[in-house]
Amino acid sequence: MSGPTGGIDLGGTKIQAAIVGPRGKVLGEARHPTPRSGGPRAIVEAMAGALRESAVQASLEPAGLAGVGVGSPGDVNGESGVVIGARNLAGWEGSFPLAEALGELLGTRVAVGNDVQVATNAEFKLGAGKPYKSVLGVFWGTGVGGGLVLGGKPWLGRNAAGEIGHIVVKLGGARCTCGRYGCLEAYAGRASMEARAQRYVKKGQDTVLFDIMKKRGRERLTSGVWERALRREDKVATQIVDHAVEALGAGIASAQNLLDVEAVIIGGGLGIRLGEPYAERIAAAMLPHLFVDDRPPPVKVAALGDLGGAIGASLLIK
Amino acid sequence: MSGPTGGIDLGGTKIQAAIVGPRGKVLGEARHPTPRSGGPRAIVEAMAGALRESAVQASLEPAGLAGVGVGSPGDVNGESGVVIGARNLAGWEGSFPLAEALGELLGTRVAVGNDVQVATNAEFKLGAGKPYKSVLGVFWGTGVGGGLVLGGKPWLGRNAAGEIGHIVVKLGGARCTCGRYGCLEAYAGRASMEARAQRYVKKGQDTVLFDIMKKRGRERLTSGVWERALRREDKVATQIVDHAVEALGAGIASAQNLLDVEAVIIGGGLGIRLGEPYAERIAAAMLPHLFVDDRPPPVKVAALGDLGGAIGASLLIK
Repeated sequence: MSGPTGGIDLGGTKIQAAIVGPRGKVLGEARHPTPRSGGPRAIVEAMAGALRESAVQASLEPAGLAGVGVGSPGDVNGESGVVIGARNLAGWEGSFPLAEALGELLGTRVAVGNDVQVATNAEFKLGAGKPYKSVLGVFWGTGVGGGLVLGGKPWLGRNAAGEIGHIVVKLGGARCTCGRYGCLEAYAGRASMEARAQRYVKKGQDTVLFDIMKKRGRERLTSGVWERALRREDKVATQIVDHAVEALGAGIASAQNLLDVEAVIIGGGLGIRLGEPYAERIAAAMLPHLFVDDRPPPVKVAALGDLGGAIGASLLIK
Repeated sequence: MSGPTGGIDLGGTKIQAAIVGPRGKVLGEARHPTPRSGGPRAIVEAMAGALRESAVQASLEPAGLAGVGVGSPGDVNGESGVVIGARNLAGWEGSFPLAEALGELLGTRVAVGNDVQVATNAEFKLGAGKPYKSVLGVFWGTGVGGGLVLGGKPWLGRNAAGEIGHIVVKLGGARCTCGRYGCLEAYAGRASMEARAQRYVKKGQDTVLFDIMKKRGRERLTSGVWERALRREDKVATQIVDHAVEALGAGIASAQNLLDVEAVIIGGGLGIRLGEPYAERIAAAMLPHLFVDDRPPPVKVAALGDLGGAIGASLLIK
């Protein structure tokens, strides 16, 4: 690596940029909201803005960076830098040459990778996965994403591997945000959990979830809202999170029975917010389903926190 | 490879040996029943017997072979050649130095691998998986075993990968032969299917399954018995196999969502016996659960048939 690189984690609600030095050291970082209108063009301009802001913090010019990596949702072609149909991103239904467009704005080389995979890779190289050669990253947030490193290398399959959120944990089970039935994400994704909480309320059950949401000026049940409700021992929140943990246990154990990795890393908004005690609960929920249960893999919380995605993206520049 | 090699597929009911020449050509083969008493010693002697018989067919001496590979159930250590606690094998609870013991009897080098993994590898190198770089092998028999080739190489994890039969397809579901609940094998393993058929009979339902079994002098509902009952449109058999196919669809789709391999290969007693029409049914049952459903992986029947395990074992000798 010839000097610092840039990394951008492109999310549905926020764009996190960082300038990253040797051994993953963050030299500058900025977070901007993801534009809700204007399509890919507006989003790419916001990405460039966030990257420039972090470069200023690091006293660098974007054009002086060795390159900028982007972790993107959607169907990412790492070779061409084209991203197709990134759901969660407004107006980005078709295909868009993300690497090319951002490269022109910043005057540097841009490489693009799958958001969840680059975050897994960051944990593998610099975070909780450092001691291992094979890890499964599980990103527990609005959805449930997965990333794989097998034998020291990212495993992408035909470019769509890692969809642990759509492992079937219950045949004939709940409808998922993806439209299918019984997926892990239908129980453990924050979007599904919020829909479930709304159904409880409609049935007349009491919960502090939506009160906390309003008090904190949120429009959704964020990870912070869930955490506060759990701390107040809210019955509805506790029940929904218990179900989510049970489903995560079954889904991750299924993945482990198939892959037998050395460690599992839990990241994502909820995973990081709820932290160690919940990683332990997930490990306990896996145990009844592990085929080899005398040496369960360690279940660790992502060590790079919210910046893992941007740091991982920066690692795309070699 | 310096000349022909030997391969032995060690199963719970039978030992299949083969002498294998270039490009997987079978030069001789013999099948013996697996001894039910006498423990590992008796089993190893029967293995040597079957191998010697196939060598005679091929006009070769075992000691003249480049080596003999064994596909074994249980916890197989490929480096030491020690096999621990092979379930299905009578009296083999502890650890036994299989490679060493068999090597002494045959006067040649012996290498040991996981039975399902070597069969997957055989299909990958010489059978239905030849056009692909990554395949998932699913062996649908008494249990449901799985083998993985990822990026051209077998993926063993920490030595226990591939247990697709113990992917959880239904939280809180049926009890599996492994003692856990809701595993794929609890619906699709032939042992579970037979137990289910017995429950149907106890409830007073009519089925030809056990009549066919007795008429054909079997003690269990073999793959052939199931096939005959299906051909006669037996209601109980049809219902149980429908459930099995549904569970296989969900379980294999889950694996595919996680791994995104290029192809799925269906082998095993039931998989091979029921053949192409059922591979198509499994593919159809996967579709509602595939996250990327516009390019489902081809689902192919294992091309090497019953000899795949022995041929794959012979490939352990390089």
